[in-house]
Amino acid sequence: MGEAQKIVGITAKKESDFFSWYRQVITRTDFVEYYDVSGCYILRPGSMYVWNKIKAFFTEKIEDLGVEEAYFPLFVTAQSLKKESAHVEGFEAEVAWITHAGKTPLAEPIAIRPTSETIIYPYCAKWIKSHRDLPMQLNQWCNAVRWEFSHPQPFIRSREFLWQEGHSMFQTQAEAEENAHQMLELYRAVYEDLLAVPVVKGRKSEKEKFAGSVYTTTVEAIIPTTGKAVQAATSHFLGQNFSRMFDVSFECSEGESHAGEKKKQHVWQTSWGLTTRSIGVMTMVHGDDRGLVIPPRVAQVQAVIIPCGVSKKTTEETRAKMDEAIERVERRLKTAKIRAKKDTRENYTVGWKFNRWELLGTPLRIEIGPRDLERGEVRAVHRVDGFSSQIKLGELEAEVERALGEIHAKMFSKAKEAQEEKIKRVDTFEEAVESMREKVLLVPWCGGVECETRVREKSKQRSVTRDGEEASGIKSLCIPSGQECTEKKRCFHCGEDTSSLALFGRSY
Amino acid sequence: MGEAQKIVGITAKKESDFFSWYRQVITRTDFVEYYDVSGCYILRPGSMYVWNKIKAFFTEKIEDLGVEEAYFPLFVTAQSLKKESAHVEGFEAEVAWITHAGKTPLAEPIAIRPTSETIIYPYCAKWIKSHRDLPMQLNQWCNAVRWEFSHPQPFIRSREFLWQEGHSMFQTQAEAEENAHQMLELYRAVYEDLLAVPVVKGRKSEKEKFAGSVYTTTVEAIIPTTGKAVQAATSHFLGQNFSRMFDVSFECSEGESHAGEKKKQHVWQTSWGLTTRSIGVMTMVHGDDRGLVIPPRVAQVQAVIIPCGVSKKTTEETRAKMDEAIERVERRLKTAKIRAKKDTRENYTVGWKFNRWELLGTPLRIEIGPRDLERGEVRAVHRVDGFSSQIKLGELEAEVERALGEIHAKMFSKAKEAQEEKIKRVDTFEEAVESMREKVLLVPWCGGVECETRVREKSKQRSVTRDGEEASGIKSLCIPSGQECTEKKRCFHCGEDTSSLALFGRSY
Repeated sequence: MGEAQKIVGITAKKESDFFSWYRQVITRTDFVEYYDVSGCYILRPGSMYVWNKIKAFFTEKIEDLGVEEAYFPLFVTAQSLKKESAHVEGFEAEVAWITHAGKTPLAEPIAIRPTSETIIYPYCAKWIKSHRDLPMQLNQWCNAVRWEFSHPQPFIRSREFLWQEGHSMFQTQAEAEENAHQMLELYRAVYEDLLAVPVVKGRKSEKEKFAGSVYTTTVEAIIPTTGKAVQAATSHFLGQNFSRMFDVSFECSEGESHAGEKKKQHVWQTSWGLTTRSIGVMTMVHGDDRGLVIPPRVAQVQAVIIPCGVSKKTTEETRAKMDEAIERVERRLKTAKIRAKKDTRENYTVGWKFNRWELLGTPLRIEIGPRDLERGEVRAVHRVDGFSSQIKLGELEAEVERALGEIHAKMFSKAKEAQEEKIKRVDTFEEAVESMREKVLLVPWCGGVECETRVREKSKQRSVTRDGEEASGIKSLCIPSGQECTEKKRCFHCGEDTSSLALFGRSY
Repeated sequence: MGEAQKIVGITAKKESDFFSWYRQVITRTDFVEYYDVSGCYILRPGSMYVWNKIKAFFTEKIEDLGVEEAYFPLFVTAQSLKKESAHVEGFEAEVAWITHAGKTPLAEPIAIRPTSETIIYPYCAKWIKSHRDLPMQLNQWCNAVRWEFSHPQPFIRSREFLWQEGHSMFQTQAEAEENAHQMLELYRAVYEDLLAVPVVKGRKSEKEKFAGSVYTTTVEAIIPTTGKAVQAATSHFLGQNFSRMFDVSFECSEGESHAGEKKKQHVWQTSWGLTTRSIGVMTMVHGDDRGLVIPPRVAQVQAVIIPCGVSKKTTEETRAKMDEAIERVERRLKTAKIRAKKDTRENYTVGWKFNRWELLGTPLRIEIGPRDLERGEVRAVHRVDGFSSQIKLGELEAEVERALGEIHAKMFSKAKEAQEEKIKRVDTFEEAVESMREKVLLVPWCGGVECETRVREKSKQRSVTRDGEEASGIKSLCIPSGQECTEKKRCFHCGEDTSSLALFGRSY
């Protein structure tokens, strides 16, 4: 076996050494390269492909809702950034400041956007005059920077990240609240319908909400292997907090004018964002000990075609037939808009190819051998569970299409099962602490800010650290939608009466 | 006429006050908003639409050439940036430096990418091992920052800009050189085939080439109104300059191995970039005293449909017929993939609408009145030259499609004529100085670095400044392809023998 034949696969096990496993799975594929500025990562073509698929899916949906694309500057003055005080407090420690251009010191330091509310809204105040200018819905795909000092993790927690940030302005509170929930539903769709990752929809606690918002809605994902949660995407109802601060107002329509004078009102706002974190969640949820497992709808190669069963004894004639058949299968699938790719490289063994494409997470492997061809068949193997079946060449396109749909469904239900298995319903703080290392906890909770602060502190003290891992307490993840208790309960921590359930857990 | 009826058009004239005209034309449309960090601008949906069209067009072409999309960090360490000394000198004064995160000073300042050669190539050195890994062609769509201190101009010269930067690596010099020219040809296509802007293809002088390259190829655009040139996009042949510095090398194939040992070679490289500057060039070249003129292939609305000839006397029946006809025309055009939009707003007059859509630069206006309908016709008016014709409803889709093609062709040839009129062939420095305020000059030139420096200094001294405008000399724009003199000439400045012609002029 020559050098080219060496199998560079995954040696760490997902269950027993998740951290090494994740690092291997993203760096030994074409996903990520670590970079020499800590907390920054290179997104290689494999992961950019997934991001572009998410982008295309989401763009189409929001265009249908009337959202337009814009681009706002990377830079923000200290004055603008600090105008909304509750908001800036949420980011202040993480803001990167530019102080010099070349060797020339700037008159005032300039910040890099951690998010763009304070960049965008002063200008919306200029653009919005009348009710006819509403709704105004803008979205940008860009980079943002939060110079976090906690442990970085590619995709999940990086100092620079790619995202979309949407900013919508409406005449009424009802429209804005509806929009916040509409966007959350699109985020659910990105995760569940595109990435096959189940999420829990809900609302953030007062303590965990976005700085400056009235409330934050969220989709939370759970990484079953670690029992930790990830905030997967958020949509904020901002009320009139920012529009008052930046005076974003409009003249009401005639019907609402008062004594001939047109009434001015502040707009009702939302903002909503989804980041490259989604790629990390997808990787952590689906990947296994052989590598990535990519959901079919975002896979660059959905079906890899590999010739099998050719040996030194194979005749020239059979070889020629094989070549032709493989060529035809690829062409037919591509014509049917299935992203297929044949791997006919001669300097690699069949075994090496199997391993390589499994490492890359390709959803479906199509094996073509001389005997299959004689029977007018090919073999199809599902990456997610190794399921294999024979496909009649006559039904190739339809069968491959069906298989890809099935693979998506299997990936989702497998992940959903694992997620549900990780959620534990408990009633007391003691029970919560006992299970917090393995589980995400569904608890009756009062929602209080102080109560949450105490839960975090106390659970952190009780956290058992292993292998140099940082002690981490639990925090509220969300108050899941439609989970109200039917009867009154007592808060799992402070004992106060409550009728709502919340998810608590360790979080990335 | 109510407030909503006020016509906010262009008051400055393009010919007599170009600066004010440009500012008005981009800010009174949905193109640009000035921002409170000098040299940074907000790209509003109108201009982002054009950028996204350019992106889609170019992405499709480079994918066909095997280029893959990646994303490299915004940040670069001082050490990496300074590794290639010839290269960094080109940007040093313009690099923005981050020194603090929150209130914490960074151990070392970190730069924001002015371009990514020094960010990308150390990692290519890790990824490329064998000839089998080549060619490697990566492209990213991102923001970059050059903190220029000269006069900023939206799109044309901004501190933050959006662009694509492509980086290709090959086994041989011939492949790399071919690639550099291939990319330049795609840039020509973006300008001429998409934006209807004629460009001159050529090569930069030694003095004006990209820092670190062996040579730079360029497409240059000319703004006829000012007689100034714009570097519209560049493609650099980097040779092995960077690959030696960052040790990007590969093992040759068996055939080229020497005495059993595999021979290592450095890769041959190109880099190539196109920026949002293209939107500014398009605006400056095509716009007129009534506003923007958008080329059909990048127009968000290609055909606006406006009801005309409805008055108080119009019967209910006719109104209903009109409504239905307009609805049907819009639907038919959209079905035929023509970006059509009806403007049936009742609170604006027909005159206001005509002015508004002309300001926005919509290529084709379709007027529908009761009399047109009786004849089974609509009226079509071309934005570029006011040409109008009747279109039979039966031939609607085909005729509108044809009109859009015609408009593109007219815009291109109008711009081409204006460009050619601006290029003057002269033989002496005196003639050049005399015409340099109005024209771009085609001159026999030796190509010398010192000669160019002297031309710039001397012409700057001779430059007549008006109205507080900065004195500006001429520099070489490019050595146009296929413009070699048939006979020997003497350099227009230093008198040395030469056989090549160069374009010299004032430049943005």
